[in-house]
Amino acid sequence: MKKLKLLSVFVLSFFLTYSQTEDSTFIRHIADYVLTYGNSYEDLRILTKQIGGRLSGSPQMYKAEQWGLKSLENVHPDKAWLQECMVPHWVRGAADEARASYMVPLKKEAKGKSVQKKLDVIALGNSFGSGKPLTGEVIEVNDFADLENKKDQLRNKIVFYNYPFNPRFVQTFLAYSDAVRYRGQGPSRAAKYGAKGVIIRSMSHSTDNNPHTGSTNYNDSFPKIPALAIGLRDADWLSKQLNSGKVEVTMNTHGYFRQDTLAHNIIAELSGSQNPNEFITIGGHLDSWDPAEGAHDDGAGVVQTIEVLRVFKALGYKPRHSIRFVLFANEENGGRGGAKYAEEAKAKGEKHLLALESDEGGFTPRGIAFTGTEAQYSKITAWQKLLCPYGACEIQTGGGGSDIGPLARVLNTPLSSYVPDSQRYFDIHHARNDVFENVNKRELELGAVNIAAFIYLVDKYGL
Amino acid sequence: MKKLKLLSVFVLSFFLTYSQTEDSTFIRHIADYVLTYGNSYEDLRILTKQIGGRLSGSPQMYKAEQWGLKSLENVHPDKAWLQECMVPHWVRGAADEARASYMVPLKKEAKGKSVQKKLDVIALGNSFGSGKPLTGEVIEVNDFADLENKKDQLRNKIVFYNYPFNPRFVQTFLAYSDAVRYRGQGPSRAAKYGAKGVIIRSMSHSTDNNPHTGSTNYNDSFPKIPALAIGLRDADWLSKQLNSGKVEVTMNTHGYFRQDTLAHNIIAELSGSQNPNEFITIGGHLDSWDPAEGAHDDGAGVVQTIEVLRVFKALGYKPRHSIRFVLFANEENGGRGGAKYAEEAKAKGEKHLLALESDEGGFTPRGIAFTGTEAQYSKITAWQKLLCPYGACEIQTGGGGSDIGPLARVLNTPLSSYVPDSQRYFDIHHARNDVFENVNKRELELGAVNIAAFIYLVDKYGL
Repeated sequence: MKKLKLLSVFVLSFFLTYSQTEDSTFIRHIADYVLTYGNSYEDLRILTKQIGGRLSGSPQMYKAEQWGLKSLENVHPDKAWLQECMVPHWVRGAADEARASYMVPLKKEAKGKSVQKKLDVIALGNSFGSGKPLTGEVIEVNDFADLENKKDQLRNKIVFYNYPFNPRFVQTFLAYSDAVRYRGQGPSRAAKYGAKGVIIRSMSHSTDNNPHTGSTNYNDSFPKIPALAIGLRDADWLSKQLNSGKVEVTMNTHGYFRQDTLAHNIIAELSGSQNPNEFITIGGHLDSWDPAEGAHDDGAGVVQTIEVLRVFKALGYKPRHSIRFVLFANEENGGRGGAKYAEEAKAKGEKHLLALESDEGGFTPRGIAFTGTEAQYSKITAWQKLLCPYGACEIQTGGGGSDIGPLARVLNTPLSSYVPDSQRYFDIHHARNDVFENVNKRELELGAVNIAAFIYLVDKYGL
Repeated sequence: MKKLKLLSVFVLSFFLTYSQTEDSTFIRHIADYVLTYGNSYEDLRILTKQIGGRLSGSPQMYKAEQWGLKSLENVHPDKAWLQECMVPHWVRGAADEARASYMVPLKKEAKGKSVQKKLDVIALGNSFGSGKPLTGEVIEVNDFADLENKKDQLRNKIVFYNYPFNPRFVQTFLAYSDAVRYRGQGPSRAAKYGAKGVIIRSMSHSTDNNPHTGSTNYNDSFPKIPALAIGLRDADWLSKQLNSGKVEVTMNTHGYFRQDTLAHNIIAELSGSQNPNEFITIGGHLDSWDPAEGAHDDGAGVVQTIEVLRVFKALGYKPRHSIRFVLFANEENGGRGGAKYAEEAKAKGEKHLLALESDEGGFTPRGIAFTGTEAQYSKITAWQKLLCPYGACEIQTGGGGSDIGPLARVLNTPLSSYVPDSQRYFDIHHARNDVFENVNKRELELGAVNIAAFIYLVDKYGL
């Protein structure tokens, strides 16, 4: 590409249609500030590089809490405080390991030769370790229907769920929704038929071999057997190997729970000038899985939340409603932070106008998703032209998030989510490559721009 | 992000509104094929990793031509051929080098100490080398107005254009359009006032220090002085240093031209079943700058062009019009391939319905841009709902590209371009990090899906 030949109709239409209006001017100021003077990328560098992965209960979680409170206070909200909540404290224990043993037929001997291959694995979050190396023959199943068909062959075996991440879903979160049940329910459904361990194909379209962790949910009716994820190349290799003979895997995982421990939601507030007792909440979650830095999941949502407060303060914006900026605790393996926030809101009889979550990565903007009444959705749809110049052209239904879901359940609060592009998210999700280097500065900033613009419109016009 | 809470309104609306129609069904088949069985990513791996950078006249250009013809023939078009064109043959000569010398004041001495710093540089494409190390005092200018103000101070100096890539443009191509004149005209405009060398701040928002090359255009009225680009960190450092004292730079570049050489546009064709003498052209350019692999620029456009042919063949699509798939020669430093294609089309009296270029990188889709009549634009806008489920939601005005521009000039052909997201493009543009690893498989594939879908609609309904 040598020369510019095009001028976006969106940028043009923005300048032509809206340049006179107060809203478009204010949103332009938001963008100019964030894209020129914003600090979200530097905030993320500190959170990821100086603190790193910050699973609930870990020393890094406590460092991240202190950093989060200080970062919010530095932007001078009207208030900032810690909200206590007890969180589960799962510990990986030690590096997870697995190796496969299989027979390679020798050219002139019938018996063949036993060969070993190290697999790149990570234990599922909240899973119990094997205690000692656990060896078993591997039985591959394609899905739960296949598991049921093979239920009589599973006793004392290691079940390998090789369910593919469906490439035909354009939006990768649909592929995740389709596949994640094997991580959540897979171990217990295999244990029901006597399996002693589980291996899961990672939920990803990645072209590398990184394994992806994430919570599993044991059913208390069955033994809590060890479970781990493998990367896509190892999964393809294992499946191919099983086509030509038996494979034994020895897995060694070390996960366990300590006692629940004290953690905190970190909250800052700008007080409303007209409706101080009506709240708008925006947030992301401060905890992250341990193998990486939690840069996209959900460092991005955390620093965007802080950035929205920063730009509102920098522009001297006085909101009509009270706006809360929340760094939630324990999204990944318990959801206790979100539950606590909603519980306290209900106990205090608070009125919540809207909650927005940013927890789909710091990628380039696509839109805003919303769950509420049809009338509210229509109102939001009319704002599309104000957001589209900054990339959020798609006003979708179905907004929400793990941390704000409880608010909808206990207070019927309308929910929204910031929707970035989804193509790269599951390349890094819960894997060792969810690091700062894989976040693009401007994409991260444009997320903050669109969230700030949307919250400004909700605050000004209500729902 | 632990659980999926949203279901895209776009995916939903697609299935609800269009599932019965022939067009949406065919486009769904295009997407299913490309996302499941496509080969564009593997094609790109070979082009970038086995061939690499392929500047006009280089040995790699010839390898790339052979590969391109074979790749198109392997998909069994009705015809495939080479179209000869003479191209300039610029040679970098050797690695470009520069170092800065400046005085660091010593605490207790007035005189200070001379210090040297190596700069990370790359000569501008088509620039002439210094011949031998060239040393001069650096004069920084902010823009051309500043150059004119300082015109009496420039004799025998090295001019440093430190014009920033404006972060307030959301679409980065607008920042490029704003800044690229300093690369194009900067050397000659400085030479006019007696400068002996030029340094340009790279046109990029990157957070690294990679320098970005690209063509400069000498004005024959002035001496053709050497010119190079430096990365953003070095540019900021140099500017800071100049604020506190004099800086000399020694630059050593080696560029020169050999005689023009024979190259080729690589062309494949599917013959039209109803209008065989009306042509639709899609293409990208095969040449690329030498410091990297030309993965996004424009390996992506090349493999997407091949992929569109592949999916049409795989689905047994018989186009109404003849469709040409063109891998253009010499976009980067001459534009001779595009010029030749248009010239021959005119000489043969061909009728061209539309040309589309993919040369803005292999990033996630945003839309299609179009230049033609208002009636044509309205017609295309009505197809937005068919493309949006695959990411091309924005139907923009202003489509075109360097390679297809000549068709519009000589035959008044309507032009379009595939528009991917622009945020990351100038991080890698003409720099050493434009490599295969920075291309995402699904983003690349979704580009091919949208191009194929758009071309199908143009072929079926005309313009």
